[in-house]
Amino acid sequence: MPGPIRWPAWFGGQTPVAYGADYNPEQWPEETWAEDMSLMAEAGVNLVTVGVFAWARLQPTPQDWDFGWLDRVLDSLADHRIAVDLATATASTPAWFTTRHRQAALVTDQGVRLSHGSRQVWCPSSPDYRQASLEVVERMASRYGDHPALALWHVSNELGCHNAVCYCDQSAESFRAWLQLRYGDLDNLNWAWGTDFWSQRYSAWEEILPPRATSSFGNPTHRLDYIRFSSDELRGQLAAEAGLLRRLTPEVPVTTNLMLPSAWADLDYSRWTDQVDVIANDHYTDSADRRRHVGLALAADASRGLGQGRPWLLMEHSTSAVNWQPINRAKAPGELQRNSLAHLARGADATLFFQWRASQAGAERHHSAMVPHAGPDSELFRQVKSLGADLARLAPVVGSETVAPIGLVVDQNSWAASRLDCLPSSRLDFSARLRAWYEALWDAHLTCDVIPSNADFDRYRLLIVPHWSLMDLAQADRLRDFVEAGGHLVATFFSGVADANQRVHLGGYPGALRDLLGLRVEEFRPLLAGEEVNLSDGSKGTLWSEPVQVTDATPLARYLDGPSASYPAVTVVRRGLGAAWYVSTQLDSAALGELVDQVADQAQVPRIDAPADVEIVVRRGPQAQYTFVINHSEEDVGLRFNGVDLLTGDSGPVIVVPAGAVRVVEQRPS
Amino acid sequence: MPGPIRWPAWFGGQTPVAYGADYNPEQWPEETWAEDMSLMAEAGVNLVTVGVFAWARLQPTPQDWDFGWLDRVLDSLADHRIAVDLATATASTPAWFTTRHRQAALVTDQGVRLSHGSRQVWCPSSPDYRQASLEVVERMASRYGDHPALALWHVSNELGCHNAVCYCDQSAESFRAWLQLRYGDLDNLNWAWGTDFWSQRYSAWEEILPPRATSSFGNPTHRLDYIRFSSDELRGQLAAEAGLLRRLTPEVPVTTNLMLPSAWADLDYSRWTDQVDVIANDHYTDSADRRRHVGLALAADASRGLGQGRPWLLMEHSTSAVNWQPINRAKAPGELQRNSLAHLARGADATLFFQWRASQAGAERHHSAMVPHAGPDSELFRQVKSLGADLARLAPVVGSETVAPIGLVVDQNSWAASRLDCLPSSRLDFSARLRAWYEALWDAHLTCDVIPSNADFDRYRLLIVPHWSLMDLAQADRLRDFVEAGGHLVATFFSGVADANQRVHLGGYPGALRDLLGLRVEEFRPLLAGEEVNLSDGSKGTLWSEPVQVTDATPLARYLDGPSASYPAVTVVRRGLGAAWYVSTQLDSAALGELVDQVADQAQVPRIDAPADVEIVVRRGPQAQYTFVINHSEEDVGLRFNGVDLLTGDSGPVIVVPAGAVRVVEQRPS
Amino acid sequence: MPGPIRWPAWFGGQTPVAYGADYNPEQWPEETWAEDMSLMAEAGVNLVTVGVFAWARLQPTPQDWDFGWLDRVLDSLADHRIAVDLATATASTPAWFTTRHRQAALVTDQGVRLSHGSRQVWCPSSPDYRQASLEVVERMASRYGDHPALALWHVSNELGCHNAVCYCDQSAESFRAWLQLRYGDLDNLNWAWGTDFWSQRYSAWEEILPPRATSSFGNPTHRLDYIRFSSDELRGQLAAEAGLLRRLTPEVPVTTNLMLPSAWADLDYSRWTDQVDVIANDHYTDSADRRRHVGLALAADASRGLGQGRPWLLMEHSTSAVNWQPINRAKAPGELQRNSLAHLARGADATLFFQWRASQAGAERHHSAMVPHAGPDSELFRQVKSLGADLARLAPVVGSETVAPIGLVVDQNSWAASRLDCLPSSRLDFSARLRAWYEALWDAHLTCDVIPSNADFDRYRLLIVPHWSLMDLAQADRLRDFVEAGGHLVATFFSGVADANQRVHLGGYPGALRDLLGLRVEEFRPLLAGEEVNLSDGSKGTLWSEPVQVTDATPLARYLDGPSASYPAVTVVRRGLGAAWYVSTQLDSAALGELVDQVADQAQVPRIDAPADVEIVVRRGPQAQYTFVINHSEEDVGLRFNGVDLLTGDSGPVIVVPAGAVRVVEQRPS
Repeated sequence: MPGPIRWPAWFGGQTPVAYGADYNPEQWPEETWAEDMSLMAEAGVNLVTVGVFAWARLQPTPQDWDFGWLDRVLDSLADHRIAVDLATATASTPAWFTTRHRQAALVTDQGVRLSHGSRQVWCPSSPDYRQASLEVVERMASRYGDHPALALWHVSNELGCHNAVCYCDQSAESFRAWLQLRYGDLDNLNWAWGTDFWSQRYSAWEEILPPRATSSFGNPTHRLDYIRFSSDELRGQLAAEAGLLRRLTPEVPVTTNLMLPSAWADLDYSRWTDQVDVIANDHYTDSADRRRHVGLALAADASRGLGQGRPWLLMEHSTSAVNWQPINRAKAPGELQRNSLAHLARGADATLFFQWRASQAGAERHHSAMVPHAGPDSELFRQVKSLGADLARLAPVVGSETVAPIGLVVDQNSWAASRLDCLPSSRLDFSARLRAWYEALWDAHLTCDVIPSNADFDRYRLLIVPHWSLMDLAQADRLRDFVEAGGHLVATFFSGVADANQRVHLGGYPGALRDLLGLRVEEFRPLLAGEEVNLSDGSKGTLWSEPVQVTDATPLARYLDGPSASYPAVTVVRRGLGAAWYVSTQLDSAALGELVDQVADQAQVPRIDAPADVEIVVRRGPQAQYTFVINHSEEDVGLRFNGVDLLTGDSGPVIVVPAGAVRVVEQRPS
Repeated sequence: MPGPIRWPAWFGGQTPVAYGADYNPEQWPEETWAEDMSLMAEAGVNLVTVGVFAWARLQPTPQDWDFGWLDRVLDSLADHRIAVDLATATASTPAWFTTRHRQAALVTDQGVRLSHGSRQVWCPSSPDYRQASLEVVERMASRYGDHPALALWHVSNELGCHNAVCYCDQSAESFRAWLQLRYGDLDNLNWAWGTDFWSQRYSAWEEILPPRATSSFGNPTHRLDYIRFSSDELRGQLAAEAGLLRRLTPEVPVTTNLMLPSAWADLDYSRWTDQVDVIANDHYTDSADRRRHVGLALAADASRGLGQGRPWLLMEHSTSAVNWQPINRAKAPGELQRNSLAHLARGADATLFFQWRASQAGAERHHSAMVPHAGPDSELFRQVKSLGADLARLAPVVGSETVAPIGLVVDQNSWAASRLDCLPSSRLDFSARLRAWYEALWDAHLTCDVIPSNADFDRYRLLIVPHWSLMDLAQADRLRDFVEAGGHLVATFFSGVADANQRVHLGGYPGALRDLLGLRVEEFRPLLAGEEVNLSDGSKGTLWSEPVQVTDATPLARYLDGPSASYPAVTVVRRGLGAAWYVSTQLDSAALGELVDQVADQAQVPRIDAPADVEIVVRRGPQAQYTFVINHSEEDVGLRFNGVDLLTGDSGPVIVVPAGAVRVVEQRPS
Repeated sequence: MPGPIRWPAWFGGQTPVAYGADYNPEQWPEETWAEDMSLMAEAGVNLVTVGVFAWARLQPTPQDWDFGWLDRVLDSLADHRIAVDLATATASTPAWFTTRHRQAALVTDQGVRLSHGSRQVWCPSSPDYRQASLEVVERMASRYGDHPALALWHVSNELGCHNAVCYCDQSAESFRAWLQLRYGDLDNLNWAWGTDFWSQRYSAWEEILPPRATSSFGNPTHRLDYIRFSSDELRGQLAAEAGLLRRLTPEVPVTTNLMLPSAWADLDYSRWTDQVDVIANDHYTDSADRRRHVGLALAADASRGLGQGRPWLLMEHSTSAVNWQPINRAKAPGELQRNSLAHLARGADATLFFQWRASQAGAERHHSAMVPHAGPDSELFRQVKSLGADLARLAPVVGSETVAPIGLVVDQNSWAASRLDCLPSSRLDFSARLRAWYEALWDAHLTCDVIPSNADFDRYRLLIVPHWSLMDLAQADRLRDFVEAGGHLVATFFSGVADANQRVHLGGYPGALRDLLGLRVEEFRPLLAGEEVNLSDGSKGTLWSEPVQVTDATPLARYLDGPSASYPAVTVVRRGLGAAWYVSTQLDSAALGELVDQVADQAQVPRIDAPADVEIVVRRGPQAQYTFVINHSEEDVGLRFNGVDLLTGDSGPVIVVPAGAVRVVEQRPS
């Protein structure tokens, strides 16, 4: 298997931190390209992504192909010693394709077939699209497989960003084939879907359709299977492109850029990773998120967690504002550096941007870039150059692994299902719950891998498992084995409720986890909007409550009021060499912090003592370990280190990190 | 005409309170059924509704019929002495029907034809559906008409819950036929609809379509007629099924479960009642309603009012949470008992639930049931058994009539029209206004029938008539006759404005009621959001105001400020032996309470003196009267009674009703 | 060219203020018409608009025409010496047309073809509609061109109110033709639209479609061109009708009623004015607008500004409430007079209403009228008569010009584009920004013309130009010429950003205005919701900020905090004989007021000293000038005048204007 990036020969076997951006020269007159090369050199750019939206330029009509311009781009990049992450150019179809192959365009659940003029309007199940896109891939691979600049294949782009689900007739046909593979016969499907409810029973495969607009709540497993199917269809496109590339250019690594964590809600990324040689992710901070650096860290830890702890590539982030949020905040001074290096701390070996030059036209013309509309004579470009210099100093970090003794487990199936209707509360908001646990860990200076629920648990001392509601018994057994072998587990309300197909486990909640957790719940008692309950330890709960009956668990806190008054709210039980906690309400953030502290101590997870809002993450390489210190606070901070900051050359015993600054302290075994 | 329930022979002529639920054994393996029977016995269940969503099981393909399983279910129920409310199974079509008869599926006003996967996707005007559904009914009636367990036919289920209005071409055709019957010729229609406005005039019947998506505000009478037509189409399905059942099994009573009060907004239930032998209603409390027991009481009083005061059947309610609200609150301890017995107090002779066993799968798996997921060893099932025991003690109540000297009049046509656009204020909210008047009565311990506007008024001393905006002159005459004969009437703002087709009565508002009320209003002056006006009696008005000019009415309160400052706000006038009040703004609830007190006193309606939040309702039978006391307050209450509580055996002179408890005091003439 | 109104011979050459309403006798039995005539005389009505929605009456079937009733209406009006503004009757198609010519009905971007039952469902690009409508126009013109009552042609009605944009295939075809004219060849189009972004490039004209529903953000220039195209298509209908009328009745003036300012966002009215002999506008105050008289003034100043300062016709306003707002507030006592005369002050020579008689039926039955449902014996009709008497006294004002030394410039293209997505902030809200500047002027008693950006600037001493974001270099040159010649200019944030097709000017914002304003901005820093920044002069900014770098401009205030802290926020620079201000944030209203004062002083705009909330506007005629004083405050006000109030006969030196009253002081040169 090829390594994550095949750096061209001129790098002399060095593996730098990859630095660059999407480069879309086709949007600019060729005379601009020369300036691009010289500015890239100035900025320290060593890798650019080319061709993401080039299909219409490469194949301007069904009959015509034009690779000349791309030849010139790649040759010029090679001449300037810049490596290329070459996109397969299949992300968006040309106008001729979308208008001639109407049946390849996405159809909404209302039956509206989408039109040309945006991006990704193709149906993931379209044979026409599959054929046309693979022809592009084949030509790209044949033409550029041996190009000296080629360092990595970039399949498609943000697969499923706008075309995650299509409801057309071709999708219907593929869905039936997928179901036949999954269920074998209709009786199994009828049982799994519970079609005896509301007289929904199917008597023939051809009666099954996508979950199109219907009169009221749809069948939940029909809907969940459609989400799974749709994810698999996109994976199918990834596999088809990646397979073709591997056949034609076996020595070139392949990736595709994911959208963690948000798109994970619909796309089962853990089933995609076998198709890529390295995880790549796109992440943009959210202007409306007051603590957006915590959201960034979560995305990075998920990128690493998805790849079982291995380094990964930050394929896109922004130098400043984006264009697609309701209000697109510009980044504050220093934020660009903090953002990029926080990704690096958390395992990224590449920090790339969308995009090199801010577009003059199109929907993203107000998206920031490495070269802004104002041009290179700008504060932003100066920051870009400064970051390039930083990254050059951080080359030793490449390949080292981020130290993370905790697993924060995401069961994608439960996440997807939590977005359907007819649940005890529509306010569950899996994403916000995940963030709340993550934020408690972040605030405690604890680094976790954010991992899929089928990951290897043995790497961790502590697993935090929020709201894994759909849990087969075999999955529960894995958690039991983990705990009995000495692991520590935190489970939360609305967990273990049903099997993976949403069929409820009988006998009391939390179903599959009842025995492991040593408790039983007879009904859910969600809290109303604005309702808050008091717990015996002084903390507060919102959103949910449960009248927990312990069998052999020990209550740690009880409800003092609210619908579950007098019942335990938080419990713990020892099992084998480990222990399992249960949290039956949404604790306030202080209480969540205290719980995380307590659990981490019990799990003997090493703790770092640092001031609030100072992010500390360690990468460990074969020769040295690298402690990233990112000071998000408004105070300068002095930390004791025996080591040297790679960015400034400062050395211990106390290294001062000014407010807003970053330090990367290299420590070698003495 | 058969009685409301034909109790099987094994009841020996006794008429118990019916107790049970929807029973959907087809969702469970047959080995579960035996446990069902034994748990039903434990709980005191005597009636279950079977087959509501069984069509796909009974007719698994167009050619195949399978009644074997249902035979076994009914036989087993008979063996265990449980009566059956047998559904016609037509509520939801099988997949084969929905996919093969695409033209029978509902079409939205946007032209989207709905798909299989929920329930009730059928168009009420579909000939295919009519034919297929009647074939099911015929087979059910033929096969089970003589079954010993059969106590009642249950036509369809919640008719119109999701398919109240269809916009397809078949509906269009039926609509034209309906209009031809209604209007005779196009000139009448053009006049009634006011089509000279905006050049909408029709010159041929075939130009008339459903009120599909159009460019701006639609013609209001076109839209109102479509609501009426749609209600009539559903009534047509009810009539077709009920007629067939009566032909085949004339001795078996027939009902269908309505959804009062919410669905009344669209469905003209007063035109449906001639098709059923007994009114049945489904009611679920609203988690977001702080005083949800008042909402429950309104629903019950409407069920009774629709049936002219006769006992009725509570066909569905919930033991605890439902699944379809934004947040599905579980019921608090005692709430289940209070809810069920409040329905009983207000005339229900049956308290049934949806459903017997909580489903493991499907959209309603998180809906509570008599047997929860946790199983019979649960607090909820213990409450269910306790309620069963209560109901056994309350058998004497069956058949007695709830005493209600007040009529709260709902003009369904005005309600439907109030939901259209282009009114003086979009904040009128008929439903909230109805509730406000109802709540004032409830708080004053006054029991009313909530009656349709074509009900017999002579049964009442006092009529409260909120917002009967669309009033033909003949309807106004009925109110005048009522008042002149000694009745007392309260009318409100935005009443009598137009005829039943929304053609405004000229000469000043309230149009048809101007003379009766002795006043005239030249224009409506709705209040803005947040705007509040002061009245001379210290009360406050919101939402609306009118510059009332009295002709011979007497002002009771005047506006001190706001757009109608100095004009009368509340008036009264004597007419014949009675009197008529007018209320031209939304009074605050204290003022509404005082007005209700005052009007009830004038109307000589007997008053009950009781603490706040204690619900007191009287049912009167031939031998005795039964006073239900439901203590919703947080204080124990002692009330003077010469009688015996049927639930506890406690007897007077003072009966203590603890906070949250219910007592049913039987009093026999001494 | 004919004058604005061709008053019939019986006016004896006098030009009264036109007073009247839409008159829709077809909604009423003919016996009502005689009363109409006599009430019109009572009210002083001299002009009514007839036939607006009469098509279905005039052509009841495709084959039949019926003008008899309209003959009788027009003859009767002539008999009663009432002039007629005769509509072409094409605004809304009859049912037979909409149902037989389905392809002429509007299609939404979701592909839904609209249905009959409202108004204006026709597609502006439909050949069928064009042909059918012109046949009506031709018959109207032929039949009534010589009618003695005919004073004005009224083309269609509120063109584009509900059919501004259609997405059907016929529209697609017309759009392609429009694009071919605009761009000549596809390369130009691809460049203008920036189709190299997201692989959107077109290789053939037939690939281009309307911007129908697509997967994500659409191409912004595709969308903007579609707005322009759609406005041009409606203009095409106006031009076709007006052209035909001019050919057949060259001596009769032509107008159409616009909807300023709201519809200006989509409709490029400055390209329509060459088709009419006089600007006419419809305006309705907004119940939710606390200072709705300011909104009214803006509409009036835009009507005048669009016509280069000339008098115009207020074609519709309301006597009291409308029917289509969420809450339809009735007008307070005196408000009708203040509203009508405020329009007159600002250049209207007609104050007409929708409508004469309140409809009994149809969507607008709750819209107020000159004769309300209550009939002529009503306060409202008494106010209508009083207003008629006022207007008779104000005849001398007709033809005089409103004095407005300031131009408030609206770049319609920028407004339209500001409503698209993918901007730095979705909270820009052009309409609210325009209103904020307008309100600052209103509060300072400064009268401005609200003018399109292609207007003649030389008429003004001061131009205020909010958010002209899309500015070609030639347009910037016009502003530079204006300033250098001694004009004063105020520009605001998000101006000069891109060319008219949204292609960003490189080198720093505000792009095309960078040199003129003497400053450069490297990035936009929009403020989050609720975020407020402090400026060095004590004022506050919201919504937006920019790190302004002055080249030769002088900072007037700086940001003290927020994302642009320490940078200039407001600047000024001298250029030639004039000066240019730049405002980079949304100032609070006090600061905006101070800035307006300061700028007006520098521009030597004469100031009027008057109390707050007293509106003062001057019209200047050849013989005299007329100062309108409208007292919106709650205090009586005395103002010094050497003149005579035309309404009361009061004369100076001090004229008292009671709270809520209006005075019109005639001053003749002494």
